[in-house]
Amino acid sequence: MIKVVLLGTGNVARYLYDSLCKKEHIELIQVVGRNESTLDYFKHSKAAITDFSAIKPADVYILAIKDDAIAQVSETLALQNGLLVHTSGSVAMNVLPNTVRRGVLYPLQTFSNTPPYYAANIPFCIEAEEKKDLDLLEKLALSLSDTVHKISSDQRLHLHLAAVFANNFTNHMYYLANKICEENAIPFSTLESLIKETTHKITTSKPFDVQTGPAKRGDTSIIKKHLELLQHSKHQEIYSLLSESIQDTYGNEL
Amino acid sequence: MIKVVLLGTGNVARYLYDSLCKKEHIELIQVVGRNESTLDYFKHSKAAITDFSAIKPADVYILAIKDDAIAQVSETLALQNGLLVHTSGSVAMNVLPNTVRRGVLYPLQTFSNTPPYYAANIPFCIEAEEKKDLDLLEKLALSLSDTVHKISSDQRLHLHLAAVFANNFTNHMYYLANKICEENAIPFSTLESLIKETTHKITTSKPFDVQTGPAKRGDTSIIKKHLELLQHSKHQEIYSLLSESIQDTYGNEL
Repeated sequence: MIKVVLLGTGNVARYLYDSLCKKEHIELIQVVGRNESTLDYFKHSKAAITDFSAIKPADVYILAIKDDAIAQVSETLALQNGLLVHTSGSVAMNVLPNTVRRGVLYPLQTFSNTPPYYAANIPFCIEAEEKKDLDLLEKLALSLSDTVHKISSDQRLHLHLAAVFANNFTNHMYYLANKICEENAIPFSTLESLIKETTHKITTSKPFDVQTGPAKRGDTSIIKKHLELLQHSKHQEIYSLLSESIQDTYGNEL
Repeated sequence: MIKVVLLGTGNVARYLYDSLCKKEHIELIQVVGRNESTLDYFKHSKAAITDFSAIKPADVYILAIKDDAIAQVSETLALQNGLLVHTSGSVAMNVLPNTVRRGVLYPLQTFSNTPPYYAANIPFCIEAEEKKDLDLLEKLALSLSDTVHKISSDQRLHLHLAAVFANNFTNHMYYLANKICEENAIPFSTLESLIKETTHKITTSKPFDVQTGPAKRGDTSIIKKHLELLQHSKHQEIYSLLSESIQDTYGNEL
């Protein structure tokens, strides 16, 4: 049995709460949040509290709060033994105070108000200073996911950067595609099979090998036509820069 | 029964060939390609020929060739009646000679050497000058797909532009993410559930509503850290420009 205290009430905390509650060999003994209203989600747990000084002894304390609050909040915690971990992709482990055993439990997923659809397959990236803590974290993470990676703070930072390209920037591409569709009375759903095919391809081939389109082909006349269709100068800049970068990647001259 | 002649031997022609051969009420009477070797794929069809002057009478002639060859090749065809259509996203219908009945049959998908995985759901966008030709094309397209849209040349051009963002540019984002992973000894597959979640979200919500990440949050310290990690100035430019564009979209100041 692993005793866990969850600190935080945001989307990541909610996801962890939902997942941890279901596990037989994990005992979620407390959820700690700053104010009553944000604890609503956890109210069927009797141990949802607002008092950060009333934290009970546990094996693992999971700090699932905003990146820029991790250093400060972790300093104020009066923990008796146990392992303190944060859940951030871009904050180094050593931001946590060196007076405690410390580690990282990073679920690599995009979290919104609704539970993630692919919740069952979220990979966990773990890190700890001590071998026994890494083993403990691995046990905890394996109860939540089939995919657990031991990676360093530096690797995690790079992985988070890669995730920004793979999620935040692709979503912005979808936003721009959607905008063009809306402005021309075309249902965005028309692009659905294309989008599915694109993401399917990169799980079976390397993205380098499956690039298509006018920039890859060096088709300057279509690129010129597309630039004329774009109404905002920033969107034109994006089109030009990404086309140039694709050209650079494949060594073609535009 | 719709009699069809297929002109072209590239990826789109192959896909159409594979699909059309299976249909009971379609008779694919000829495949026409410039040289023998490119006709290899169609060799179990007895009617694969290289002579563009030996085209038989048909109901629909599908010109599945490169965009920049459509105008020139279509001028050289000696067609007896029938409807001539091209399959391009970005070429106007009126590029075809006005001496024939003309139209467009545009399958919205990314085609590679391998057949598309989501082949069954590819939407077809159709256009024709005459009502009877549009009806004929609709019948043909509905035999290939459940989703058929009647759209104008101008709409098609915009849709193709949207597809460049939704496919070509997202694939380049995956390439950059993959590059970062490779340089840091992280398996690219770690990002798979994130990528699936992202594409799932935009089929159930608007991309505008599900944007996450440092640019959306206005988290300048992480943006600065990420820019320092990127090793190529063009990739830094992409990161900055896309972050700015996300900020512009949500009205936050960086």
